[in-house]
Amino acid sequence: MKTFKVDKKRLMEKILELSRIGALKGGGVSRLALTDADKMAREWLLQWMKALSLEVCIDPVGNMFGFWGSKDLSSTILMGSHLDTVATGGIYDGSLGVIAAMEVITTLKSLGVKPAGNIGVVNFTNEEGVRFTPDMMGSLFMSGGITREAVLNTPVVGRNDLTFQDELKKAGFSGDFDSTGFAPKAYLELHIEQGPILEHKSLDIGVVEKVQGINWTKFTLTGMANHAGTTPMDLRRDAGYVASQMGVYLRKLTREISRLVGTLGSLSFYPNLINVVPEKAVFTVDLRHPDAMELAEAQNKLEKYLLAVCGQEGVRSEQENLVRFDPVDFDQHLIATLYNTATNLGYRFDKMISGAGHDAQMMASICPAAMIFIPSKDGISHNENEHSSPEDIENGTNLLLNAVAKLGGLT
Amino acid sequence: MKTFKVDKKRLMEKILELSRIGALKGGGVSRLALTDADKMAREWLLQWMKALSLEVCIDPVGNMFGFWGSKDLSSTILMGSHLDTVATGGIYDGSLGVIAAMEVITTLKSLGVKPAGNIGVVNFTNEEGVRFTPDMMGSLFMSGGITREAVLNTPVVGRNDLTFQDELKKAGFSGDFDSTGFAPKAYLELHIEQGPILEHKSLDIGVVEKVQGINWTKFTLTGMANHAGTTPMDLRRDAGYVASQMGVYLRKLTREISRLVGTLGSLSFYPNLINVVPEKAVFTVDLRHPDAMELAEAQNKLEKYLLAVCGQEGVRSEQENLVRFDPVDFDQHLIATLYNTATNLGYRFDKMISGAGHDAQMMASICPAAMIFIPSKDGISHNENEHSSPEDIENGTNLLLNAVAKLGGLT
Repeated sequence: MKTFKVDKKRLMEKILELSRIGALKGGGVSRLALTDADKMAREWLLQWMKALSLEVCIDPVGNMFGFWGSKDLSSTILMGSHLDTVATGGIYDGSLGVIAAMEVITTLKSLGVKPAGNIGVVNFTNEEGVRFTPDMMGSLFMSGGITREAVLNTPVVGRNDLTFQDELKKAGFSGDFDSTGFAPKAYLELHIEQGPILEHKSLDIGVVEKVQGINWTKFTLTGMANHAGTTPMDLRRDAGYVASQMGVYLRKLTREISRLVGTLGSLSFYPNLINVVPEKAVFTVDLRHPDAMELAEAQNKLEKYLLAVCGQEGVRSEQENLVRFDPVDFDQHLIATLYNTATNLGYRFDKMISGAGHDAQMMASICPAAMIFIPSKDGISHNENEHSSPEDIENGTNLLLNAVAKLGGLT
Repeated sequence: MKTFKVDKKRLMEKILELSRIGALKGGGVSRLALTDADKMAREWLLQWMKALSLEVCIDPVGNMFGFWGSKDLSSTILMGSHLDTVATGGIYDGSLGVIAAMEVITTLKSLGVKPAGNIGVVNFTNEEGVRFTPDMMGSLFMSGGITREAVLNTPVVGRNDLTFQDELKKAGFSGDFDSTGFAPKAYLELHIEQGPILEHKSLDIGVVEKVQGINWTKFTLTGMANHAGTTPMDLRRDAGYVASQMGVYLRKLTREISRLVGTLGSLSFYPNLINVVPEKAVFTVDLRHPDAMELAEAQNKLEKYLLAVCGQEGVRSEQENLVRFDPVDFDQHLIATLYNTATNLGYRFDKMISGAGHDAQMMASICPAAMIFIPSKDGISHNENEHSSPEDIENGTNLLLNAVAKLGGLT
């Protein structure tokens, strides 16, 4: 069976080129959405799209598309990801998915093949959600989950005098392409894993079947501040102690419910003094599970336990749901295509579940979608030390190339 | 048997008078050591001492003494406490001990009795330790635990351009009385309990037999920051989880070791984000026990458990001892005198252990010392809502008066 191959050297050069935009001293990049650095990255991509003679389309929230082939956009095999990063990000998260998509088209064009339908690349705006809330904003807009007005009026985090619209105009990437008016034939996204599983299992590729569901809850516990030396243990109403019990229980819960991950990532005590029993403890719990029912069950158990330990300690509890995403299943046909293609290419691969959120999960609500993961060294991401090897990058891009070729009828 | 009685109205008026110096809107006071408010309180006390014709002596760290009677200071029955407060303090903590001592002398003088030996009052500098570290500084100096130079060179907390000496001079309370050169015959301190025990047991008086020992330890745990969604539970090195385990274990330890109190009062996570496994957790443990051996045993068990859970989680631990005070036993003869006197006066009383530190524990190293506690409403202290009833204040001062009369051979 015929397989195509990307040009590894050309691919890595492009990654290096982009890594200079918003470069940090530690080897990472800072390209918060719609800042000057993001604008420069967008202009760099725009030039590249034009150089490849793609039809460039910008939608009202700044999502950038480059189309090749048929005018019938419903035939589009769309590939992409995002160029924005967190404040001290790595050079692969997001960027790889866009660059690999461009390399796929470059390779196909250089081979002189011509798609019957359309093949496209997309750079989604504000996937990271650091500078504007929520994250995955561009793909959320395209898939109909948020209105144009809501996006444009979103304030810059921590500012009340500056909106998404202001910054989009300043960047010069406001267009009138109606991205909500079309559903691609398929959406494929190549991304680094952002976790340690592939490396741990010595695999080349993860074929992502699902994105797990997420619940973020903020809990505020109120007890009573008391002197640490003079207050007998049985008269205490220690909000900090209850928070500790929750930290320990959360781990226990992840052992009880298979595939559950749970994190107590932020915690603050008040008054936070050595010799005062904590009056208040504010903490968050991040729960994730690939199954919606089991995620809800985990959340219920957590809340039930909290109620019990609060009762024992005389502590009051309030809670606020911060984020709730249901699990997303990717398309079975696309997954099968990726399996077969990876097998043909001789890669060591396995199916896997994405622990992080990605634009592909938004796209899954309007078209068949799937993702390809490649290993991240030590599972590090959102960090300047994020790293994936050139070989893994080449493998991932070759899988994307050959899957697109197959889906586009080029083989 | 003859008993003396203080003038409750006069006593409460003096408490009210002092409460206006450094008064806060919420009903409390702010008289941090050697601030203008503390200076005003000192001048107020100085005038009162002079009005009572006491011999006023100021030592090099600003401890204020008022002596009455014999020139032989080794015969002194010394009473006192401190006039400084925390930033938002109550009107009784410390102040009561000094005012009650002055009321005792006022009462005795008004009765025309004359002591064979000396009866004295002391206001110790910087008991609270908020503006200068360590706390109980004045009594620590008098008892030989810190040198004059060390005290004078102590910086104001958070400032590097201002020392204790600068502020003492500015306040005008630097003297040359050699307080380290004499040991009183006895030291008695009346203080509010700062805890809920007397109120809880419906008692009028606590005769303090001991001050419990204190260990303050700061622990710094270092694990690995990881993505909360993509990192499998068994690959985590969660510093926050280990801190939670310590919070739960600490409570367990207080159930295993009788009379142990333990508090995890301050805790900070880094990076403290909802979706990142905590890389670092910094927390403090305040352990107190009236027995030195059992306190050491508790500390050992805590450290042993930490080592075990750190090992399981792959987290590194560092620790720093912040404070270590051995338990202090008060004088058996003085305690017996307080027991007998309280019985004669018809008070409901019990022996008790002080959970907080007091100047009396420093004095115990150079002379027989003991303390009298009266109830604190809801155990609240170091707070504007601190409250003790006029009746309890009268009872405590009457006990002090009659014990001093007995010790001074006036009955």
